[in-house]
Amino acid sequence: MSLDKLFNPKSIAIVGASSEEGKIGNVIAKNILELGYEGEVYLVNPKYGEIFGKKCYKNLAEIFEDKPASSAGMIDLAILAIPAKFVNQEILNNSKNIKNYVVISAGFSEIGEEGKKQEEELKKITKENELNILGPNCLGFIIPSLKLNASFAGGMPEAGNIAFVSQSGALAVAIMDAAKKEGTKFSSIVSVGNKMQIAETEMLEFLVQDENTKVIGMYLEGIKEGEKFIEIAGKITKIKPIVILKAGKNEKTQKAISSHTGALAGDDEIVSAVFEKSGIIRANNLEEFFALLNFISFSTAVPNQKVAVITNAGGAGVLVSDAFSGKKIQLADLENETKNKLREFLPAESSVENPIDLLGDARADRYKKALEIISSVPEIGSVICLLTPQEQTPVAEIAKEIIKFKDKTDKNIVTVFLGGEKVEKAIAKLKQNEVCNFSFPDLAVTAIDSYSQWNEFRVSKTKTPSQLINEKRRTKVLEIIAKAKSENRQALYFGESAEVMAMYGINTVESFEIENYHGRNLGYPVVLKVDSDKVLHKTDKNGVMLNIENEMKLSRAISEMKTNFPESHFIIQPMAKKGAELIIGIKKDEIFGPVIVYGLGGIYAEFLKTVDYLVPPLSLGQVEKSLLSGKIKFLFQGVRGQKKYNAEEMTKILIGISSFSLEIPEIREFDINPLIVYNNSQEAVAVDVKIII
Amino acid sequence: MSLDKLFNPKSIAIVGASSEEGKIGNVIAKNILELGYEGEVYLVNPKYGEIFGKKCYKNLAEIFEDKPASSAGMIDLAILAIPAKFVNQEILNNSKNIKNYVVISAGFSEIGEEGKKQEEELKKITKENELNILGPNCLGFIIPSLKLNASFAGGMPEAGNIAFVSQSGALAVAIMDAAKKEGTKFSSIVSVGNKMQIAETEMLEFLVQDENTKVIGMYLEGIKEGEKFIEIAGKITKIKPIVILKAGKNEKTQKAISSHTGALAGDDEIVSAVFEKSGIIRANNLEEFFALLNFISFSTAVPNQKVAVITNAGGAGVLVSDAFSGKKIQLADLENETKNKLREFLPAESSVENPIDLLGDARADRYKKALEIISSVPEIGSVICLLTPQEQTPVAEIAKEIIKFKDKTDKNIVTVFLGGEKVEKAIAKLKQNEVCNFSFPDLAVTAIDSYSQWNEFRVSKTKTPSQLINEKRRTKVLEIIAKAKSENRQALYFGESAEVMAMYGINTVESFEIENYHGRNLGYPVVLKVDSDKVLHKTDKNGVMLNIENEMKLSRAISEMKTNFPESHFIIQPMAKKGAELIIGIKKDEIFGPVIVYGLGGIYAEFLKTVDYLVPPLSLGQVEKSLLSGKIKFLFQGVRGQKKYNAEEMTKILIGISSFSLEIPEIREFDINPLIVYNNSQEAVAVDVKIII
Repeated sequence: MSLDKLFNPKSIAIVGASSEEGKIGNVIAKNILELGYEGEVYLVNPKYGEIFGKKCYKNLAEIFEDKPASSAGMIDLAILAIPAKFVNQEILNNSKNIKNYVVISAGFSEIGEEGKKQEEELKKITKENELNILGPNCLGFIIPSLKLNASFAGGMPEAGNIAFVSQSGALAVAIMDAAKKEGTKFSSIVSVGNKMQIAETEMLEFLVQDENTKVIGMYLEGIKEGEKFIEIAGKITKIKPIVILKAGKNEKTQKAISSHTGALAGDDEIVSAVFEKSGIIRANNLEEFFALLNFISFSTAVPNQKVAVITNAGGAGVLVSDAFSGKKIQLADLENETKNKLREFLPAESSVENPIDLLGDARADRYKKALEIISSVPEIGSVICLLTPQEQTPVAEIAKEIIKFKDKTDKNIVTVFLGGEKVEKAIAKLKQNEVCNFSFPDLAVTAIDSYSQWNEFRVSKTKTPSQLINEKRRTKVLEIIAKAKSENRQALYFGESAEVMAMYGINTVESFEIENYHGRNLGYPVVLKVDSDKVLHKTDKNGVMLNIENEMKLSRAISEMKTNFPESHFIIQPMAKKGAELIIGIKKDEIFGPVIVYGLGGIYAEFLKTVDYLVPPLSLGQVEKSLLSGKIKFLFQGVRGQKKYNAEEMTKILIGISSFSLEIPEIREFDINPLIVYNNSQEAVAVDVKIII
Repeated sequence: MSLDKLFNPKSIAIVGASSEEGKIGNVIAKNILELGYEGEVYLVNPKYGEIFGKKCYKNLAEIFEDKPASSAGMIDLAILAIPAKFVNQEILNNSKNIKNYVVISAGFSEIGEEGKKQEEELKKITKENELNILGPNCLGFIIPSLKLNASFAGGMPEAGNIAFVSQSGALAVAIMDAAKKEGTKFSSIVSVGNKMQIAETEMLEFLVQDENTKVIGMYLEGIKEGEKFIEIAGKITKIKPIVILKAGKNEKTQKAISSHTGALAGDDEIVSAVFEKSGIIRANNLEEFFALLNFISFSTAVPNQKVAVITNAGGAGVLVSDAFSGKKIQLADLENETKNKLREFLPAESSVENPIDLLGDARADRYKKALEIISSVPEIGSVICLLTPQEQTPVAEIAKEIIKFKDKTDKNIVTVFLGGEKVEKAIAKLKQNEVCNFSFPDLAVTAIDSYSQWNEFRVSKTKTPSQLINEKRRTKVLEIIAKAKSENRQALYFGESAEVMAMYGINTVESFEIENYHGRNLGYPVVLKVDSDKVLHKTDKNGVMLNIENEMKLSRAISEMKTNFPESHFIIQPMAKKGAELIIGIKKDEIFGPVIVYGLGGIYAEFLKTVDYLVPPLSLGQVEKSLLSGKIKFLFQGVRGQKKYNAEEMTKILIGISSFSLEIPEIREFDINPLIVYNNSQEAVAVDVKIII
């Protein structure tokens, strides 16, 4: 249901309003009554007849008593700040007349079993009566443009274009306080509390349509309904930038895992992969989060990724250059023409290489002229103006020139004014005029880089395909799985896995059963392997015998193996030709569903973690981009003195795995280890395939 | 020569003093005369008879004219702020009477060839006359405890225990300005300018003896005399912590390189390795640099590495936990006893797991009690007190309790008060009372981690051995090199390299010359290789033929190879048994001399860069620590299902390479690729050794 009336109510009832200082119901009532909200307000509390000179109702129902005709729609929003035990009943009683609620009250799922039960019940009420409920256990929300502070945090932030959604009320309070000092302006601040019904995805859907919101910032500790979140977020980031500070990097303890993929894939890396796929900007820490929101709030995403830096201090310039390492945006190489123009007015000792050093005695005119020249270069998208407050530096004047210039250009102009008292006022002036100042050079570079990557995502044509299920294929695979299950196996035999892989276009190494190898052309040397769900780490347990040279030795090897692994299933495979060993697996993430993990294989794979992540469903373009910019890109670009590996072939394999992961959600774990790929015409081949069912 | 009189002068002459506003000589004169300096001051400028009501001398010599008897030692320090062209002569003229100079004047090596010549000349004068010269092209220096501002930066920082040495004058100004706002206090601020004579090492030697200095902070763009720097810094960090912000990460362009090691070793990684060896704390950016200096200034390095966090906001607590990932310090696991004590006074909904959540309504008493309980746990060394300013939070009172508590404990107590106006005053109060507050959780964790690692270094017994040269061995190696040179070769043959390696205790694979293999027990299959300084990347150019199975095939291979590489030298080697492939090389760093690079070998080595660095000379302990905590530590801890590799053997090999690198500085490049190590009783063996001479 639309959240419009919840966040833009014409009338509000405050249940639990109080005249007692320090009570939450007191703070909320004052915030709503005294900070400029212009809608109708009803106070509710059985303890009082009147608060703040206003009538106080016993309960919500009493408000409607004398106005039965117009009851429905009379109150757009009810805010509940009463003990948890009364919440469900009060909402249920009024569910016909009031559709939107904010439940401030704590004492729900966050306190354990008892609370969880009550929250489940509330959720049911919500659904059955088509209600919107923010919370429970939340701080409330604030819409500065409406002068509506429907929370128990004090004050009224300035109205602006940043929507901030927080899973932590306390952090929201701290950020609001910091924002006041920094001049950060908000379209809305929403505390989502326990996220019973309205969670990140619902907020995104609302905020994308909110005209006042330019950028959406979220502090999240967890993500609900991951697959839906990916889908919705991916669409919204094509319209508005989303910046998320995701806490809890080490939250979950790894469960016992039997596949290599499990050991390779970190939960936090998966979050990053999901964000990347969805075009979400991930803030690495609170400071970056702040910086990104402030920057985007004031700036346009420019298509040009080159950056120019002008500075009045060489040293500070070097620090900015350093900050570019590992970033996608780059310092622009200036053309001779530009350099000559700069040389014309700069002293001989200046540097006209980017960072452009205007020297310590630079006054406003040098900044102005340099800005004009730089901004006439089409490739340059952003300019970082660095300043240190030296004796001869007219800080305020320089700020003024930068502000004037910003209005005339379509480049991103940001500043890094280093210092304390000497730059304080100028920084305030810059911010008032929507020039973003960063306290430190690194933050400026990071922010421009992230915004620029978002813009690339936004304009890219690559579309995530919809999830097509090949029902016929699915049925066949399920039959194979059913047979294995009927034999009480937890894993498919290699032969079965090979059959499944073939359906997804993946080639496996030839294999023979030990019962019928006699007289067949095995292609010595061969490998003998135990093929059992009870021996998953074969190599560790001597379940693999390599390089068996002839039939006699094979026969001996089989006897030995049978003794070591009685009642097991065995297979014989020819030794695969040498190539690059890769690993591909599917990690079933609890939140986001299947995630493909792929990278370098070999015995050190687990330690080197040279892996990348892909979140299905996938387009060819998405896979190719990952291959060519990821951790094993060197294989597809050609190792020194070696031919390139075939990125197209690898793309098809990964698309096959993607279809497999979506089509057969029944599988519990999966990996191919190794997949051997070749840089000649030879086809890639899966040597071992583990499908745990 | 001692710098005592330079930095603690009883009398100062200012050459170029001026009454003209805005002139550097005017600013310096006013800074020295008006900010409280109590020594004698002489003003020098031929243009004036009097400045500021004080006599003005024509030149330095004039000061001594009427006092010939006491001339030497009459003026401790002369500061020159005159055009560069007059500097050398003025110093030379007075070199008998004045021994210490600060040359503010620019126009030396920083402007190119002309200036370089003049600086060389000045350097000569300095040496011949045993002078101390700070600069040229510097800002000067400030010693707050003496109220001496001998610079052209304005103001007088507060006197404290941080010594700050800067290669950038402008950055020093910005940092001083920021410091004022932050309450940062200095023992000295020194701008070293062109570092002609007094560079980082000289400053370290002076500052380690300076009683007022507790921590040394340096902003450096380059390092002079790297090997001396390593030696001196390594000794000083055993006494005082050094924090360096090293700019210029991408400064040098890689030259054409013919060894793998060259491609593997980044200049910036080498700087990090040098800092680590010397126990220097590296600040990754300006913000960290600030944070580290402020923290160390106020804190004691505690031996316990465990950290407790107390917070009034769960969300902020999670962000702190996240900041621990990748750090050596860890969140303490609390014992049940401690948890029970906490539970006794905390509400039921609190979390007594570390981070300890005191809840949003926590008042000062909860912080106080939690601090008391936590600090009675011996393993805990540091406590981070997090606070968000919620409605019920008495910020000032909590700050007061923390301040009181800090005086009573030997733990590190730091705060992270998040917010803006609501926490501003409390933060100022904390700082006044020497409690370090960090603006963001990550900075707190990073600072504690770095300081703690420094302390580990300080107390560690590991000592860098002195560089012992085995002259006999050196002579033998030089003979081999001489022979190769006489044959116009740039590389040693494998046989020669093997001979050299043997002298350093490193085993090489057996090898045979193609002239005399007939009838010998080669141990097929064998490898045939071209062994020539003209074919350095053998594998790339088909200069290696693997798996030759018998004498007939070998003979055919030899003919083929001879056709492809006419007039080359060839060798035959048995195929080495499979093991872990490592690479070891020596990178000759322009600044720091030889650096050992070692890590995983194989064809992807260059892309994976799984390498670590060691800076000779090395003790066994240092090498072992690197092996067991570095990028390939997993080999020595045992890969899943595999036996451990022998760390002791590897240590000996690396020590051998270290001796080699120091004993034979004549070699230009060196690497072993691969060195095959085994995890059975088999000895490690170098399969290919490249010694470029």
